[in-house]
Amino acid sequence: MTTQEFKSEFEARRQKVESAIDKYLPAADTRPSIIHQAMRYSMEAGGKRIRPMLLLAAHDMFPSDADPLPACVAIECLHTYSLIHDDLPCMDNSDLRRGKPTCHKQFDETMALLAGDALLTYSFKLLAEAYKNCPQAAGLVFDLADAGGSTKMIGGQVEDVLGERDGKMTPDKLNFIHHNKTAALITAAVTMGVRLADNYSEENIEVAREIGKNIGLAFQVIDDILDVVSDDATMGKTTHLDAANEKMTYVSLYGIDRSREIAAELTSKAIALCDKLSPNCDFLKALISYMQNRIN
Amino acid sequence: MTTQEFKSEFEARRQKVESAIDKYLPAADTRPSIIHQAMRYSMEAGGKRIRPMLLLAAHDMFPSDADPLPACVAIECLHTYSLIHDDLPCMDNSDLRRGKPTCHKQFDETMALLAGDALLTYSFKLLAEAYKNCPQAAGLVFDLADAGGSTKMIGGQVEDVLGERDGKMTPDKLNFIHHNKTAALITAAVTMGVRLADNYSEENIEVAREIGKNIGLAFQVIDDILDVVSDDATMGKTTHLDAANEKMTYVSLYGIDRSREIAAELTSKAIALCDKLSPNCDFLKALISYMQNRIN
Repeated sequence: MTTQEFKSEFEARRQKVESAIDKYLPAADTRPSIIHQAMRYSMEAGGKRIRPMLLLAAHDMFPSDADPLPACVAIECLHTYSLIHDDLPCMDNSDLRRGKPTCHKQFDETMALLAGDALLTYSFKLLAEAYKNCPQAAGLVFDLADAGGSTKMIGGQVEDVLGERDGKMTPDKLNFIHHNKTAALITAAVTMGVRLADNYSEENIEVAREIGKNIGLAFQVIDDILDVVSDDATMGKTTHLDAANEKMTYVSLYGIDRSREIAAELTSKAIALCDKLSPNCDFLKALISYMQNRIN
Repeated sequence: MTTQEFKSEFEARRQKVESAIDKYLPAADTRPSIIHQAMRYSMEAGGKRIRPMLLLAAHDMFPSDADPLPACVAIECLHTYSLIHDDLPCMDNSDLRRGKPTCHKQFDETMALLAGDALLTYSFKLLAEAYKNCPQAAGLVFDLADAGGSTKMIGGQVEDVLGERDGKMTPDKLNFIHHNKTAALITAAVTMGVRLADNYSEENIEVAREIGKNIGLAFQVIDDILDVVSDDATMGKTTHLDAANEKMTYVSLYGIDRSREIAAELTSKAIALCDKLSPNCDFLKALISYMQNRIN
């Protein structure tokens, strides 16, 4: 797959995801309108839609009668709720997200809290509704709720908050945070995509989980690198925060060069595993490479 | 069923629910411990467990191989998350809940936000895990996510917040709030219980929904009455707030006597519907009467 082919395929798929988000979210004028406006405001703020794109790419390697798009929207709802709540005053107190006012700045704190709650709840309603006739429905709900729960995504967030507060970050804590705060949901994207295949197997889901862990961790290592080497305009958010906050990151632990090597190793491992799943894995491999080489 | 039989059966069932909460929640020392302590702190604060009790009572009218207790815990998790978030400074800013410090007072605001998020997420994980081999799994997730979502429970909360802010409460808004903020989740308790029966039917679930709507609305009307006629010690929370805030309630609209009549009418309607579901409905009927006659 050439770079040009990848770019054009990526953009076509991203458009499908954008349309699905518009289609599956409650209309902005659904009563009460303000909460549905807030949900849509944060969901429509854009971004690369990495999680839905991974889910689609994993799904499209296999024959499947199921429509993966509701699952794509569900995982993006859960991801977006986590951003809205992370931005709240009692968390990171961020005013900007992707160059636009954060949800509580655009609306207010009460509405942002509730819009986050509503997107989290909606992610499960959408899965339950769209896949009610699929035997995989419970598995999909489990994948998403487990990844987003107190032992994974929220757990990583908790250790991150505590680590910043007491200043006692250790390599073990950093590892826990990176594996859980970011990688768990990226892993769920890959496993959910594979689970939706007609003849999915527990073996395939286990391989999907390994792929997800490797790219999820690489994603976070690259985030740490970009915080140092990129700038606000490119990233659409404030950079150089980690050094300013003396935060322990992959870069502060291992330096830029070794961090790049680690990201490359993780990426190679993930790409090698793709062949175990399906011969039809060119797009997934290209997407994983793209994630390694992203500049924002 | 005599009052004494009801009380003893109620207490036996409530104990089963308490044990199930302890069994199904992640242990307090699960990493990261602080979030699991916070989740348990709010879940163990007690209360009458009305939603799990309704779910159990609805379920136990029918032959069923399914264990209803995980669903009981799931609906209580979702209810408890809504209380934690309602108590936050940007919402009601409450310091006490059932005579104990609220979650953000006992821990802090960040941890209360995340504990609420975690309980909401866990409610769906528990359903997906416990009922993965039941054909009803997706239906249960749908019942709960729909009731807790932006068009129902959260939607009712939004209109309540907006109504208090702009002071322009109307009977239509009050109706929307009562039907959605409180009655929707009570309705889900009844429908989920019926759905778990071996030979559940859409007709039965429709009747369950009607029962739930009537008792859910009665529950809120009685709450409005108790705010006027009860006291802080009996209620375990601050009373007479509605009048102090000049809040529109059933009592301010219709007066105490007519409100009591409305609650009695709704309760009778619900009780009459029980016979349509099963001849084995004595406990459910007694529970509905108990809810009407509660003093806190």
